[in-house]
Amino acid sequence: MRLSRYFLPVLKETPAEAQIASHRLMLRAGMIRQASAGIYSWLPLGLKVLRRLEQIVHEEQQRAGHHPMLMPTIQSADLWQESGRYNAYGKELLRIEDRHGRDMLYGPTNEELITDIFRREVTSYKQLPLTLYHIQWKFRDEIRPRFGVMRGREFLMKDGYNFDVSKEDALHAYNRHLVSYLRTYERMGLQAIPMRADGGPIGGDYTHEFLVLAETGESEVFYDSAVTDLRLGDRAIDFDDRAQCQAIMEEFTTPYARTDETHDDAIFAEVPEERRRKARGIEVGQIFYFGTKYSDPLKALVQTAEGEQVPVHMGSHGIGVSRLVGALIEANHDENGIIWPEGVAPFGAAIVNLKQGDTDCDWVCEELYAGLNAAGVEALYDDREERAGAKFATMDLIGCPWRLTVGPRGLKEGNVELTSRRTGESEAMSPAAAIDRLRGIFAGL
Amino acid sequence: MRLSRYFLPVLKETPAEAQIASHRLMLRAGMIRQASAGIYSWLPLGLKVLRRLEQIVHEEQQRAGHHPMLMPTIQSADLWQESGRYNAYGKELLRIEDRHGRDMLYGPTNEELITDIFRREVTSYKQLPLTLYHIQWKFRDEIRPRFGVMRGREFLMKDGYNFDVSKEDALHAYNRHLVSYLRTYERMGLQAIPMRADGGPIGGDYTHEFLVLAETGESEVFYDSAVTDLRLGDRAIDFDDRAQCQAIMEEFTTPYARTDETHDDAIFAEVPEERRRKARGIEVGQIFYFGTKYSDPLKALVQTAEGEQVPVHMGSHGIGVSRLVGALIEANHDENGIIWPEGVAPFGAAIVNLKQGDTDCDWVCEELYAGLNAAGVEALYDDREERAGAKFATMDLIGCPWRLTVGPRGLKEGNVELTSRRTGESEAMSPAAAIDRLRGIFAGL
Repeated sequence: MRLSRYFLPVLKETPAEAQIASHRLMLRAGMIRQASAGIYSWLPLGLKVLRRLEQIVHEEQQRAGHHPMLMPTIQSADLWQESGRYNAYGKELLRIEDRHGRDMLYGPTNEELITDIFRREVTSYKQLPLTLYHIQWKFRDEIRPRFGVMRGREFLMKDGYNFDVSKEDALHAYNRHLVSYLRTYERMGLQAIPMRADGGPIGGDYTHEFLVLAETGESEVFYDSAVTDLRLGDRAIDFDDRAQCQAIMEEFTTPYARTDETHDDAIFAEVPEERRRKARGIEVGQIFYFGTKYSDPLKALVQTAEGEQVPVHMGSHGIGVSRLVGALIEANHDENGIIWPEGVAPFGAAIVNLKQGDTDCDWVCEELYAGLNAAGVEALYDDREERAGAKFATMDLIGCPWRLTVGPRGLKEGNVELTSRRTGESEAMSPAAAIDRLRGIFAGL
Repeated sequence: MRLSRYFLPVLKETPAEAQIASHRLMLRAGMIRQASAGIYSWLPLGLKVLRRLEQIVHEEQQRAGHHPMLMPTIQSADLWQESGRYNAYGKELLRIEDRHGRDMLYGPTNEELITDIFRREVTSYKQLPLTLYHIQWKFRDEIRPRFGVMRGREFLMKDGYNFDVSKEDALHAYNRHLVSYLRTYERMGLQAIPMRADGGPIGGDYTHEFLVLAETGESEVFYDSAVTDLRLGDRAIDFDDRAQCQAIMEEFTTPYARTDETHDDAIFAEVPEERRRKARGIEVGQIFYFGTKYSDPLKALVQTAEGEQVPVHMGSHGIGVSRLVGALIEANHDENGIIWPEGVAPFGAAIVNLKQGDTDCDWVCEELYAGLNAAGVEALYDDREERAGAKFATMDLIGCPWRLTVGPRGLKEGNVELTSRRTGESEAMSPAAAIDRLRGIFAGL
């Protein structure tokens, strides 16, 4: 993208209403604008990041064998009355009356609707296991929306639902989701720690929240520092392998890690003192196994191999996709702006032309621009007539992980400058070498 | 995808509530299920088609230089009061009251919100031209929703908005959209005829609707048959070239083509009688130039090169993405089911194993499956234990454009059978030749 043609309304001033870094930086970098309280428009740069996260979530869900579908945002209240949640849910549920006076609602989650689809279509254990998911906008009418997309009212969530004939199968689905979520967050460059959680309005005997450590997190968390050393890395995972999924689940959930809701001082005291940590965390996902909590009242039955009719065992699994954009920034920024991990950067590389209009500089910039895009590295080329300082400031603010600076002095030696946004370190090299370097960095992300 | 693991709940019976072919076939092929009146869940197969259409729309919008963003579904009523549409819009507008008693609405369109973003960020002609678009769910509370996704309440639409400093520039944006829409529909395998239309609640002096001819269309249309011979084909288009866009606009809009809303018997009578056609059509898109209709009341001003403050010239442009799925089926089906054009098919090829469990058949099917996916042709492999007739019927119903049939008799000669869903014609060839043939057909779609 050429910046001269892009819509990137960056702000020099820090918006007064923004209390935390991610909110400030998303406004300043021209990623979002508030439409009304807790509801945002995503401008082109913000949408690019959101779409990259969605893409990673889709790929990892499908790698684990889950099927994408899409439920609507507006639901009839009928199913919620059937499950008993219509009255239980409280004021966060946005209730709507349509022109015929029928009670509708803007879905904050979809257990009822997916169970209804299931009970109409699936009758036998032979059609199981089945996990369906979607990435769709949800609404929770927060009494006091704040922190930008971190606690908005309209938010994008991936929610998935597994259907299994037995508790044993459903617990494999639970483990499979846990492993799949670990992969998902690692690809985004985030460490999200699974912590024992509370069921809340979804319910559930087994549930883990995934938390990203950040000072601005809404939850107080307590953990054994050993948990932060764990990585999936590039180990091969077979999501049908129950033993492997179970082992990874145990590896990542054995060290003590709990939010204040489930924290237990006595158990925490058994962690060696030098490894005991208290911090704050941002919740970016949660998985549940809740058995027959919805299939019982909604009568979602399947026939077992023995010919018995049993309520299907279910779990649900959520990733806060729009909230993750905020969480990523909370975990990746400095005083100059955002520092995107390569896997989620809206543009992998920035090209800054120090002397727009100079034949050599313009030519090399065009070559870099075409070469990077051909190499699969999406580049943002600042081709405006602006002084160098302003160009650097914009690129630092919006957080492109790599910057290529092209100026007459370097070009005399045949070089451009490659700068890491994270370390600030620069290296001179030929344009071709810079393209090769970046191709290598972004390959396979 | 292996059918044994997919969620594809096909129906043998024709659902009683479905009056038109696309609604019947989308239900029978397991593409959608009704969640409540006029509101649908998209099952995996339906979502695949919807995503293919979205992808084409995105690619063609960006090819024309338009920027993707995303506005929320829920809007504050304030802006609509400012534009005067809050009271004017009628009962199709879904009005909502939030927990604080504030008036909100589910956006049926976004002129107000985009104009608000524009007026807060753009002040000078130097930042123009600018066209922003999004693909987002909309809601129109139809009094009598029917025909499945063709006249639903919650529907997916691409809506785009151009901002220009003068009427002349805005009319280029109008032409650019017209050309871009022609390309978009052609890539989907659809002929959509631009017809002179009526502004309706959006307003506008210049407006064209795009209609697909179909017996089940909601509009009566009158046209010169010469218009149906027109194709963009693969001509090179420069969307910055005003003369070229203007010429294409004239080429496609000069032959008489109007809906009953704008039809004029006297002008129609001038068309040679043998070319006069009266038919029915499905509206799949509309473009508007409405000048300063929204920028005036919302005070969206820009400074001209001469230093004057003028209201920005705008147009809006919509493509009914979810409705297009229905329109495509209305235009492409037979008594056995859907016939997807290659450019939008959920799976390009079906693999039918006539003797599941036979070592040779299984092996060749696996080779085809891997080979097609590697060749960029997404394949659906029916690996179930089912009789051949049922397998053929499913694949015909869901409309894969090409079927590969693998059976012991053909394999004795080293052949599989490649069958066109559209013509029904079959040809025997080696598995490698079949992969090559399909690679060629799908390359560059």
